[in-house]
Amino acid sequence: MKGTILRICPQVQLIDLTNDISSQDIMEAAFVVREAYAYFPEGAIHLVVVDPGVGTSRPAVALRHNGHYFVGPDNGLFSLVTSGGEPDEVVVLDKPAFWRTPEPSNTFHGRDIFAPVAAHLANGRKLCELGSPTQSLQDLRWVRPIADTQGLRGWVVHIDHFGNCITNIERAEFEAWREGRGVKVYAGTSILKGIGETYGSVEKGDPVAVFGNSDLLEIAVNGGSAAELLSIRKGAAVSVVFVDKS
Amino acid sequence: MKGTILRICPQVQLIDLTNDISSQDIMEAAFVVREAYAYFPEGAIHLVVVDPGVGTSRPAVALRHNGHYFVGPDNGLFSLVTSGGEPDEVVVLDKPAFWRTPEPSNTFHGRDIFAPVAAHLANGRKLCELGSPTQSLQDLRWVRPIADTQGLRGWVVHIDHFGNCITNIERAEFEAWREGRGVKVYAGTSILKGIGETYGSVEKGDPVAVFGNSDLLEIAVNGGSAAELLSIRKGAAVSVVFVDKS
Amino acid sequence: MKGTILRICPQVQLIDLTNDISSQDIMEAAFVVREAYAYFPEGAIHLVVVDPGVGTSRPAVALRHNGHYFVGPDNGLFSLVTSGGEPDEVVVLDKPAFWRTPEPSNTFHGRDIFAPVAAHLANGRKLCELGSPTQSLQDLRWVRPIADTQGLRGWVVHIDHFGNCITNIERAEFEAWREGRGVKVYAGTSILKGIGETYGSVEKGDPVAVFGNSDLLEIAVNGGSAAELLSIRKGAAVSVVFVDKS
Repeated sequence: MKGTILRICPQVQLIDLTNDISSQDIMEAAFVVREAYAYFPEGAIHLVVVDPGVGTSRPAVALRHNGHYFVGPDNGLFSLVTSGGEPDEVVVLDKPAFWRTPEPSNTFHGRDIFAPVAAHLANGRKLCELGSPTQSLQDLRWVRPIADTQGLRGWVVHIDHFGNCITNIERAEFEAWREGRGVKVYAGTSILKGIGETYGSVEKGDPVAVFGNSDLLEIAVNGGSAAELLSIRKGAAVSVVFVDKS
Repeated sequence: MKGTILRICPQVQLIDLTNDISSQDIMEAAFVVREAYAYFPEGAIHLVVVDPGVGTSRPAVALRHNGHYFVGPDNGLFSLVTSGGEPDEVVVLDKPAFWRTPEPSNTFHGRDIFAPVAAHLANGRKLCELGSPTQSLQDLRWVRPIADTQGLRGWVVHIDHFGNCITNIERAEFEAWREGRGVKVYAGTSILKGIGETYGSVEKGDPVAVFGNSDLLEIAVNGGSAAELLSIRKGAAVSVVFVDKS
Repeated sequence: MKGTILRICPQVQLIDLTNDISSQDIMEAAFVVREAYAYFPEGAIHLVVVDPGVGTSRPAVALRHNGHYFVGPDNGLFSLVTSGGEPDEVVVLDKPAFWRTPEPSNTFHGRDIFAPVAAHLANGRKLCELGSPTQSLQDLRWVRPIADTQGLRGWVVHIDHFGNCITNIERAEFEAWREGRGVKVYAGTSILKGIGETYGSVEKGDPVAVFGNSDLLEIAVNGGSAAELLSIRKGAAVSVVFVDKS
C-alpha cells in the first residue's frame, strides 16, 4: 500500500497510526481511529483497511468529517468514527481511473483502491472527482451500556499495550446517572471502590477505575496489566453500581 | 540503521516494509520483498537485512533489477527476488569509504555497511562507485512444488497477519497441469473442493483455497485464521489433486 | 502523539526508534536509547515516553547532551542515557504555553506535554524558552556487575528480536579484570568457554559469548534464539570466571 501511495504522491508523509488492530475487528479499529484522528492536522487523510468484507459487494467510500478525510470500506466503521453524525461529504469510489488498476484484486482493495484514492486526495484531488456522491453510510450501532438509576453495565472495547481495559462507558453518561453518589465497579475478578484520578492514585499493584484520555471508563492496575492480573478479555462485561456514600 | 541513513541523507523518506520476518528466514524475506518491491516507485532502494551469515565470509552486495535497487547480504535472497533472472547490475560492496566505519562490527553489517551504502545511493551515487562489478549472485533454489498430470505438492512459505497461508504453488503452473479439471486441495486438517474467487465466496468460518494477490495459492478461512483453525504451520505441505468434474 | 507533533511542526521527519520496550521498563528503554541515539544526526530530538509515574509528581524535562536533545519524564532514564554524566543543559517543563493544553491528561503526558515540546524544539525553539533551568536529573543507578580478580557477575538487561541476550558487562571492565586469562561464561543452562569473535564463529546451533555492537557481553546462539534455547530471561544472572589458559 505504501509503495502504491508513493508512486502517485512521492512527497506524502506516511504515518502508521497502528498495526495492532485485532484481525478484522471493525469495532476496535473504529475506537482507535475515533480517538486519534482529531489530534492530526486538519486535512489529514485517514486510510483505514479493516475490511473483512473485501471481495464482496460492500462499497468503498471516501468522506470528509470535521475537516478530516477518511478512505476505506463502508462496513459500519465510519459510522462509529462520526459517532452516528452525518459526515460533511461522502462519495462511493466508483471511478477506476483513480485505482491502481481497473481490475482490482478480490482480496486486497487496500492496495488497489483505497491507497491510490488516498494518494490522489493527498495530491489535491477533490472528493467529488474521485467518486459519486452518496448520503448513506452503513450504520453499525455502537453497543451502548445499559443504564438506569442503580448503575450501568458496559463492556471492554479495547485493551491497550499496557493491559489497560477501556470500556464503552462515557464519563458524561456516567456522571448523569451517578448524581454524586459513591461507586462500585465490577471488572474481571475484582471489585473497585470509587473512581481514581490517575493510575498512580492507588498503591503499586492495586487496580483502579479511571476515566482515561478518551473520557471512557478504564480499568487499570498501577504498574501492571489489568487485563492479565484481573483476567479481563476484550468484550468482558464491566458493571457500575451506585451506592450512597457512608 | 535509520540514524546512520539520516546522517548521510537527511531528506530521505524511510518506509518500513515489514518488521515481521521470522528471525533469519531468508525464504520468507525473499517472498515478501519479491511481492512488494514493484509497487514502489522506480528508483526505490530496498534495504534487506535478513542476514544469518553476518560476520562470516558471505559478500555484501548492491544491485539494480527492473529499475529498483537492492542492498544487503548475498545469501541467496536476491536470487529469489529476481526469480533466478540476471539483474541488470551487481556490485560487491568492497569500498570502506562508503561504510559507516572502515572496521565494521562483526554482528551488525546492516548498520555499518548496508545502511550507509543505501544512503549514498539515495544521495545519487552510482552502483559502480560503491563497489566492484560482479556477475554472480549466490543462488538459492526456490523449492518448487512437485507436479505431474495428477496434481501438485507444494508448501506454505508465509503466513500473513490474518492467518492466511500462502504456498509456493503459482497459478500459471497450476493451470498448465490442471487442464480444466476439478480440484481437491489437502491442507492441514482440511480437504477443500475447488478454487474460490475470493475469501468471501464461502460461508463465514469455512475454509477456501484462492489465488491471492501474488498469484500464489493461498489457504484461507472466511473471517478467521486458517493457520489456527486448520493447524497449518509455515513449511506445511499442501497437496493439490486434479479430479474429473462430475 | 504523532498527530500532536505534526500539528505544530508539519515538516518534521518522524522515526519510530522502537515500539518493543516492555511495559514501563525504564532500564530497557534507557539501554535502547543509550545505544542508538548517537547514530542519528546531531540535533536530533529523542522523545522517550516510558513513564510509569505519569500523573504523579515526577517532573517532565528536556535536555541537551552530546549535541542531541531528549524529552521525557525525569524518572532516572536520562541518567542512564548520559551514563551518569552531567548533560549540557536541562530544563523542567513548566510552561503550559508549549503544551497541547494547559490542563494535561493525568494519564498521557506523552501526547499533552512531551510531544508538543519536542515539536516546538523541532521548530527551532530553544530549551530555555520551553522550561526553567535545573541541574539535577533523578539518578537511577545502572546496577553494575560485581567484579574482582576471579570474575564478574552481571545480568541480562535486554533480549533482542533474535533472542540474543545482552548483559550489563562492559568490554573495558571485562578486559581490565581479565588480564589476558581464559574465560568461562555461565549463562542459563550453558557454560561457554572463551569469547567468540562473531555469532558465526561457532557451529550452527551452538551458543557463544561475544561482545556485541554496544561493547556489552552478549549470549547468542548461531542461527537460533539464545533466550529460548538456553532458557535465559531478562534479568537472569550471567557469571564470568577467569581461568588460566591450559
